[in-house]
Amino acid sequence: MHILIIGAAGMVGRKLVNALLRTGTVAGRPIRRLTLADIVAPETPDFDGEVEAVATDLAHDGAAAALIASRPDIIFHLAAIVSGEAEADFEKGYRVNLGGTHALFEAIRRAGLERPYRPRVVFTSSIAVFGEPLPAVIGDTQCLTPLTSYGTQKAIDELLLADYSRKGFFDGIGIRLPTISIRPGKPNKAASGFFSSILREPLVGEPAILPVSETVRHWFASPRAAVGFLLHAAELDTGSLGQLRTITMPGLCATVGDQIEALRRVAGDGATKLIRREPDETIAGIIAGWPKSFDASRAKTLGFRAETSFEEIIRVHIEDELENRAPERA
Amino acid sequence: MHILIIGAAGMVGRKLVNALLRTGTVAGRPIRRLTLADIVAPETPDFDGEVEAVATDLAHDGAAAALIASRPDIIFHLAAIVSGEAEADFEKGYRVNLGGTHALFEAIRRAGLERPYRPRVVFTSSIAVFGEPLPAVIGDTQCLTPLTSYGTQKAIDELLLADYSRKGFFDGIGIRLPTISIRPGKPNKAASGFFSSILREPLVGEPAILPVSETVRHWFASPRAAVGFLLHAAELDTGSLGQLRTITMPGLCATVGDQIEALRRVAGDGATKLIRREPDETIAGIIAGWPKSFDASRAKTLGFRAETSFEEIIRVHIEDELENRAPERA
Repeated sequence: MHILIIGAAGMVGRKLVNALLRTGTVAGRPIRRLTLADIVAPETPDFDGEVEAVATDLAHDGAAAALIASRPDIIFHLAAIVSGEAEADFEKGYRVNLGGTHALFEAIRRAGLERPYRPRVVFTSSIAVFGEPLPAVIGDTQCLTPLTSYGTQKAIDELLLADYSRKGFFDGIGIRLPTISIRPGKPNKAASGFFSSILREPLVGEPAILPVSETVRHWFASPRAAVGFLLHAAELDTGSLGQLRTITMPGLCATVGDQIEALRRVAGDGATKLIRREPDETIAGIIAGWPKSFDASRAKTLGFRAETSFEEIIRVHIEDELENRAPERA
Repeated sequence: MHILIIGAAGMVGRKLVNALLRTGTVAGRPIRRLTLADIVAPETPDFDGEVEAVATDLAHDGAAAALIASRPDIIFHLAAIVSGEAEADFEKGYRVNLGGTHALFEAIRRAGLERPYRPRVVFTSSIAVFGEPLPAVIGDTQCLTPLTSYGTQKAIDELLLADYSRKGFFDGIGIRLPTISIRPGKPNKAASGFFSSILREPLVGEPAILPVSETVRHWFASPRAAVGFLLHAAELDTGSLGQLRTITMPGLCATVGDQIEALRRVAGDGATKLIRREPDETIAGIIAGWPKSFDASRAKTLGFRAETSFEEIIRVHIEDELENRAPERA
């Protein structure tokens, strides 16, 4: 089995590569070859089979066709310009998030015109396809009403994925990821950054800033859960999906207060005292338009699983990122 | 005021041109210039102002920019590869219905980068953006689940229209037209053709074929109503549209039996006897997946108006297409 991961240098991409190397199989078939692509060449992991790292931009002429020439069996397409950058740089967002994805789908279709080819395509979409006005709990048949260029591009990609799959050009499945928490690494300027940093920093004794109220409610899953979604999507029987090829993933609906309370239970008052309240109206305004909770029944019926408490999400972070060293309790 | 109509050689396009010439104004401003574009050059009407007919293909490099160079105030974009052809010729459908429309929107945005430009763009979408499973009556927040490439392309265009409008590149409004009945002209091979021909042909003493059951239910408006939607969309205050820039137009929910009964009332038994039942399972199968009725409350609140009975639709056809000559009653 040959697996192509586009966006392999990103946080979720690297974790996906590690998970694939750990299991060594997908749907019971051994992985013989890995192609890891990103805008910069991803690190090449230790691997018994064939492995190559490719620096490429899907939106460049011929780039997608070159990636597809070796006819991978499974294609994970995780690459995208993130929300804030797609909003700030309209042309770049459309060029990569719409143009690049459409070019990939076209390259697969054209490869199939030469001789039969129908790979599994696992595409990561986003809950940014939904924008206000929204119900308190968003169901599986909610209309796509993106309020950003990023959300618009992901919604369009979902429509393309469904049509190309319906026509039999590939076997596509899209997954709308919750906000990932706890993201490993350094604090960043994303509006959603504090959802991770208010837990990640105190767990290692560092201070963190909370720019919104503790009553703010949102939808979360761990990086480990996100990788689990991708692997399950690669193995799933797509026969039951019908035309609805993209599925909202399960997650945990929690308030910032719930996050802090979970941190207190795992790491004590010393950790929660490291969170400094610095209200930021701009961030609060952005977050206010985001979805708060989903009824992800469809995904659960299909076997997708996420965490059910923020304590669990914190323990996943401690296991995966802190070498399982429990924080000292103050 | 300068008006550009793309798709001006089509049935609705020609009627729109005639309506504009008749009124001479849009939103109280006199029409000084008309640009009529289509894949073949439209006929040039008698007009006191400036008028030009252009043969162009929006999907060709530079074609959209050339059309926009004169900075029309209102752009009606009606041009599309129709449903059956878009399904049969995948590449052509995407090239024109997605590529051409996106190129038009991009040309407008780029013109605005040089100096401020924000025209009204009136785009015709289709109820083909909706596919089974569907509720009996489709509301204004129904999720877009196209089951054809044509429906997918129109759904994508709707998303682009909303995002380009949100960013202020133009002032867009999309209208989802009902199935047009009674289409003037000759019988054609479209699956929906009989919805017009079972009325049009008997009204002039010709036979017509009915390939489905009289219980088949669908959603209709006359060509005159379609032109009325376009003119209203060009004049409407878009301030209240928010992010939902495309609106399902009002129409008449009727069965084939309702159509035939209206024909009987207008033209007598002699007319209805000209309808020959020849069940066609292929056509019946296609029609079975189509929407049957809509709650078009939003459009009605915004002032869009359609016919309320099939007798009215038949009388519109007699007035507009048969020089108001009532058919002889048998």
